[in-house]
Amino acid sequence: MPELFNVLPPKQALELLRSHIDVQTLGTDLVPTQLCLGRFLAHDLFSDGDLPSFPRCSMDGYSLRAKDTFGATEGMPAYIEVMGDIPTGAEPGFDIAPGQAARAHTGGMLAPSADAVVMVEHTQTIDDRSIEIIRAVGVGENVIQPGEDISVGQMVLPGGHRLRPQDLGGLTAVGKATIEVARKPRVGIISTGDEVISPQDSPSPGQVRDVNSFTLAALVEKSGGVPSMLGIVGDNLKLLNTAAAQGLASHDVLVISAGSSVSARDMTADVIQDLGEPGVLLHGVALRPGKPTVIAVVDGKPVFGLPGNPVSAMIVFNLFVQPLLAWLSGCSDPLTPPTVRAILERDIPSAPGREDYLPVRLTTRQEIRRAEPVFGKSNLIYTLVRADGLVQVPLDKGGLYQGEEVEVHLW
Amino acid sequence: MPELFNVLPPKQALELLRSHIDVQTLGTDLVPTQLCLGRFLAHDLFSDGDLPSFPRCSMDGYSLRAKDTFGATEGMPAYIEVMGDIPTGAEPGFDIAPGQAARAHTGGMLAPSADAVVMVEHTQTIDDRSIEIIRAVGVGENVIQPGEDISVGQMVLPGGHRLRPQDLGGLTAVGKATIEVARKPRVGIISTGDEVISPQDSPSPGQVRDVNSFTLAALVEKSGGVPSMLGIVGDNLKLLNTAAAQGLASHDVLVISAGSSVSARDMTADVIQDLGEPGVLLHGVALRPGKPTVIAVVDGKPVFGLPGNPVSAMIVFNLFVQPLLAWLSGCSDPLTPPTVRAILERDIPSAPGREDYLPVRLTTRQEIRRAEPVFGKSNLIYTLVRADGLVQVPLDKGGLYQGEEVEVHLW
Repeated sequence: MPELFNVLPPKQALELLRSHIDVQTLGTDLVPTQLCLGRFLAHDLFSDGDLPSFPRCSMDGYSLRAKDTFGATEGMPAYIEVMGDIPTGAEPGFDIAPGQAARAHTGGMLAPSADAVVMVEHTQTIDDRSIEIIRAVGVGENVIQPGEDISVGQMVLPGGHRLRPQDLGGLTAVGKATIEVARKPRVGIISTGDEVISPQDSPSPGQVRDVNSFTLAALVEKSGGVPSMLGIVGDNLKLLNTAAAQGLASHDVLVISAGSSVSARDMTADVIQDLGEPGVLLHGVALRPGKPTVIAVVDGKPVFGLPGNPVSAMIVFNLFVQPLLAWLSGCSDPLTPPTVRAILERDIPSAPGREDYLPVRLTTRQEIRRAEPVFGKSNLIYTLVRADGLVQVPLDKGGLYQGEEVEVHLW
Repeated sequence: MPELFNVLPPKQALELLRSHIDVQTLGTDLVPTQLCLGRFLAHDLFSDGDLPSFPRCSMDGYSLRAKDTFGATEGMPAYIEVMGDIPTGAEPGFDIAPGQAARAHTGGMLAPSADAVVMVEHTQTIDDRSIEIIRAVGVGENVIQPGEDISVGQMVLPGGHRLRPQDLGGLTAVGKATIEVARKPRVGIISTGDEVISPQDSPSPGQVRDVNSFTLAALVEKSGGVPSMLGIVGDNLKLLNTAAAQGLASHDVLVISAGSSVSARDMTADVIQDLGEPGVLLHGVALRPGKPTVIAVVDGKPVFGLPGNPVSAMIVFNLFVQPLLAWLSGCSDPLTPPTVRAILERDIPSAPGREDYLPVRLTTRQEIRRAEPVFGKSNLIYTLVRADGLVQVPLDKGGLYQGEEVEVHLW
């Protein structure tokens, strides 16, 4: 396997891929804002107006001139005439003169000449038309100024931002009822292997049901892409060639889950190399599991040959395909997976010059969170099912020790 | 506001709610496995068969009797006759006698009498029909035994488990092409306030566009529920009564985003109390922002009166509604939000006996992650838009200090 001799560490491999990709090439969709959760904003968005558009009371009480309350205390209150009520949602139908006030409601408007709101808790009612103020207010107190939330011309959110629930609220607040978001990348997934059958079928001796297509499709969905399972192709160069060429033509990204034998893996690499230019960027990453990874670019579209082992496939997907899908959507700063700290329960041996990832299960004992390695083989899907996340052994380390505090990357 | 005098801390408030809720009451949906990402498994699932169903080669090489390699070294190799090839996906058409082997491929079957696989790297080819073995193998070496991934009768995944990408792969691997998952909770969302208008409309003076419905709907979606925005209802007791009763009848959970003035908030509490038994469980939580929260149960269905301020509404949603939606799906251990550690950039004052949450923005300076409080008012939606997460000041603390390491709960 001479192609595996000069392998790049994951970080450099990702940079090499990045240097061959034009980001934000997918075009855009115009989508109603309430359907945009998790989508990437296509362009910088600016506010067309001030929010709020009027001085808004932030407390229940009375709007008035602040200077009319100057020096007011419980012992020496200010007497104020109440001219009426300004209900929320309504324009004031009257104004106030010095020494006068209007009843004010949180979210409502002030009287036109008022410049502050005194909280109801700092007043005493004398009769229907008059109150005492027992604490002075400053100009602007208990008032949200026009544009204080966001002002006209200010950036609402930058292009490439992944929209969170509160962002949708912020967008509707400034009247953006539809949003231009990056089109979701379409990802074709081909599973290979003469032994692989559809999950609906019953395996004969020697056959196994497809695992990787379904895991990979769900990973694509979780990463903001649209997966298409293009089916299972046997270890046949011509068939795989045709399927790969068709898959690439109709998708933005092609992912081939390689067969697990060396000859099947090499066939995947050959097929990818034949798809077009520039072709295979690297064949092999300094990574375990996941070493026999193929990363290619064909006519500007990324193509991945993922190892057939489920554990390897998922680790390689998260390291390379997930950030790629974010780049294609114009996001320059992909999400990193959440991590938690835990005490390692066993030694993890590794080799310097290689990045190792080990699935772990999290448990809590004596109120301390612990990471228990799941030492299943990387060709077992249940190694992943039984794990809560991964522990990384960095490139320059020979392993990790029992009792060390480690960061667990959650799925 | 006498109803706010006896307020529970968030943890006890959540326990009180929990004690009034029957979990897993929603019934189930039968869904194709590839559409089940993020859904909750309805019941414990067990494997109907062994995975793999046959002894499976985990390396390319030769299947043989391990004892035929006993003592083999480079200096004293074992000579073995190669009887043929067993391609992946195929049953062996022949068997081997002592001193014989079959060519083996990763993922393929062994010869019927073979009990180990010797890696091709540990062999030397003599001619078409014979090889030398230069390293001994033990029984079972380089073989995945039947049921080693998962065995017949073993639990695949427990009921209530939230399905991750690899779980879908694990389920298809054992032939589960459709899955019974908990039906998603239907959550009705009512926005109230005379000043609130639809985002499509242009606000007149005194009016603001609806923010909370859209934020809350996206939070419901993110939490695995199905949101319905039931519209904006003015501060009118009768209209709100009718809308709430109708919303409750056709949904599993009702969320009312209360008006922001005290009278509007009290109206929401009154409306909820009138919906049915047992009614309001608590009115007020020892929480800032978010104190004027109403939590109720009506005929077994939870009803929330959330504060009108966007920041309060989101914090209260995450503390109470999000775990509730998980319980209703039969999940006893709801996801906790991911956290990162950061150095606090400013003092955060608080008061003992109250849990405070402060939105913060994360920055990195001198390679240290820092949490910068976003000191916007809690009635500004852009306080949330500009923040990356929340810092919690625990119940028993009077505040947090600049320079302290804090945990930031990411959105």
